[in-house]
Amino acid sequence: MKTDIKKICRKAKEASRRLAILDNGAKNAALRAMADALSRESSYIASENSKDIEKAEKSGLSRVLIDRLRLMPSRIGDMADSLLEIAKLRDPVGDLLETIKRPNGLVIEKVRVPIGVILIIYESRPNVTSDCAGLCLKSGNAVILRGGKEAINSNVAIFNVLNKAALRCGLPEGAITMIDNPDRKVMEELLAQSDFIDLAMPRGGEALIKYVTEKARIPVIKHYKGVCHTYVDRSADLKMAEDICFNAKVQRPGVCNAMETLLVHEKIARKFLPGMIKRYEASGVEIRGSKEVKSISPGVNLAKEEDWHTEYLDLILSVKTVKNVDEAISHIMKYGSYHSDAIITGDKNAQAKFLKEVDSACVYVNASTRFTDGGEFGKGAEIGISTDKIHARGPMGIEELTSYKYLIYGSGQVRR
Amino acid sequence: MKTDIKKICRKAKEASRRLAILDNGAKNAALRAMADALSRESSYIASENSKDIEKAEKSGLSRVLIDRLRLMPSRIGDMADSLLEIAKLRDPVGDLLETIKRPNGLVIEKVRVPIGVILIIYESRPNVTSDCAGLCLKSGNAVILRGGKEAINSNVAIFNVLNKAALRCGLPEGAITMIDNPDRKVMEELLAQSDFIDLAMPRGGEALIKYVTEKARIPVIKHYKGVCHTYVDRSADLKMAEDICFNAKVQRPGVCNAMETLLVHEKIARKFLPGMIKRYEASGVEIRGSKEVKSISPGVNLAKEEDWHTEYLDLILSVKTVKNVDEAISHIMKYGSYHSDAIITGDKNAQAKFLKEVDSACVYVNASTRFTDGGEFGKGAEIGISTDKIHARGPMGIEELTSYKYLIYGSGQVRR
Repeated sequence: MKTDIKKICRKAKEASRRLAILDNGAKNAALRAMADALSRESSYIASENSKDIEKAEKSGLSRVLIDRLRLMPSRIGDMADSLLEIAKLRDPVGDLLETIKRPNGLVIEKVRVPIGVILIIYESRPNVTSDCAGLCLKSGNAVILRGGKEAINSNVAIFNVLNKAALRCGLPEGAITMIDNPDRKVMEELLAQSDFIDLAMPRGGEALIKYVTEKARIPVIKHYKGVCHTYVDRSADLKMAEDICFNAKVQRPGVCNAMETLLVHEKIARKFLPGMIKRYEASGVEIRGSKEVKSISPGVNLAKEEDWHTEYLDLILSVKTVKNVDEAISHIMKYGSYHSDAIITGDKNAQAKFLKEVDSACVYVNASTRFTDGGEFGKGAEIGISTDKIHARGPMGIEELTSYKYLIYGSGQVRR
Repeated sequence: MKTDIKKICRKAKEASRRLAILDNGAKNAALRAMADALSRESSYIASENSKDIEKAEKSGLSRVLIDRLRLMPSRIGDMADSLLEIAKLRDPVGDLLETIKRPNGLVIEKVRVPIGVILIIYESRPNVTSDCAGLCLKSGNAVILRGGKEAINSNVAIFNVLNKAALRCGLPEGAITMIDNPDRKVMEELLAQSDFIDLAMPRGGEALIKYVTEKARIPVIKHYKGVCHTYVDRSADLKMAEDICFNAKVQRPGVCNAMETLLVHEKIARKFLPGMIKRYEASGVEIRGSKEVKSISPGVNLAKEEDWHTEYLDLILSVKTVKNVDEAISHIMKYGSYHSDAIITGDKNAQAKFLKEVDSACVYVNASTRFTDGGEFGKGAEIGISTDKIHARGPMGIEELTSYKYLIYGSGQVRR
């Protein structure tokens, strides 16, 4: 099957011009119609989804991955609810960000505009299809969706339902596009469409991100791994530290904002670690400690160098003692992924140093790294967590899906 | 000669961590010392520059390009003055951009931070070396400079002077780096250093930009061509239109914000064009018109399809009549480069439509496109004009050379 990528992308670009000037009411009406349609077509989506599940079971996919794929009625309901939530968000397009008045009489307005055409490349979870379509529409962008082949039937079903509803509401063809050809050549061609696509966002494993970064001729914002740290300072309230460290690792270990490495000030390690490790082990967490940690709690495994780099996404935790806040910061900057890192401390100087010198998207004091999330930040739904420093960092909500332009009002000014 | 790119980039990254926490006073002291050093070492720089000029003359470079290369004492003085101007700018690092208070008691501060390590790839003009070093330093970034081989002696001389002054002021080694190996393989290796370089900015011709976009594994913000338009609407004040159109083309034709295509409403074309074209021709501007334009002014050349795409950077102008503002917008969106476009009009509806639908970085009403410039926007010196939609659009001053991070203050909060 031949897919005419250039034609598809040109259509998306044309649609983006119309979406950019659509008013909030029209966008919300479409979002509500899309939510309705998901609920109405729930059994069609579920039956298409069962094809993916069957294939996944045959091919021996892990239980965790099959669970991610599965669309029960409640999950389809959640997708619909998310679209309704997105409709309720404030429309950021047209925001006046700055006004500059120049001595020559020129008035310069910086106003928020959509980015244009956004390409989302993602793996497994089919709800990404509907979330990304909703967020891109609300922010006035056309979206091109390219999901993983293991969820292809589910993704196409969701797309069909959403797209029909959108077209019925008068949205232009090309506002939402699904690429159903799983060929890598097609993805490569997509990533070269710099005339038509303004931004690519890969969401998935390390291999996918690397592939996209290598092939892309268009700007990319990465949703990369989270090797998140918590550093328990000498001055920490140890009860608070224990609760936060437990939460950051155990509450939902499979997500990017979960803690992967615990750093503990050496002067409190003997007091803090035995109880903490006991609590972890009682919840099934495997501890991989440095030599010093093993000398305190001999039962733990010894960490290897690669452990400090690893995003486990599982009930595994690497633990190390450090001399002071400086060593903690150095460790985080050397091994971390600049996603979310926390200090637990009662010392204002250590706190200030940590906040200033840890260059991560989200730097916490006395709280769990698990709060790095669009909803928890009060931004509403998010399209991902940027681990890049260009354009957007941390949770990306609809404001982060916009750009700006300058409108310059003159009365005949010429340059001297 | 072998250049250890990885080592150089790692050093820049380390330097960037120190620069990020440097206070404004220390940065300004270094900028002033760098300006002093340029003035003091003016004759050394000029003598190194004469080697480049000699080589350029031997190789038959055009007069315009040789003029761009040449560093007379006045130009070296201008470079020093620019550094002093940059020192006077407000330091954007640490700006509190937003405060979010959450119901659970978390306080989230969004604060401005430097980007990290910025790679600038540029051609010809040696003053870029000093401007970019100054702007990156002021915004707390380490900079890696990779200039063109035709200016290599001048660039290295300027770098030597600046870097010595910076080190004397206590700036870390690696804060300013010059890559003096002109090998393309070296550039390719640079563009792959995603662990150490946060942003690449190519400034130069189309071939350079394409090369960088293709090879980069790091984020790129492009300073691409300016195919800028002025549309003279039916309702325009024709005297004002003539002055603006003349200025936009003639005042400095070799720059990216100069007009390349003039669009004229067909109902006023017979009244407006003959006088306008006469004035252009009196200043040596070659006109390439559409059939309709040639029927009004038979002396002009006929434009070819490729003319509408072309950034002449010269005293050449393509001219076309259009039916209405819609056709003008369609033409601009089809052939333009989304840099700077203007409408000259007295009609509020046409103005509103043009401002809304022309998706360029800078959209003008009744003014010359020549104002797209950091200084003219009141931002001070600029590092370039972004034609991208990600991160920054239009003139990029020091604020656009920053990112942000979130600082989250808790008192024991955990995620439920």
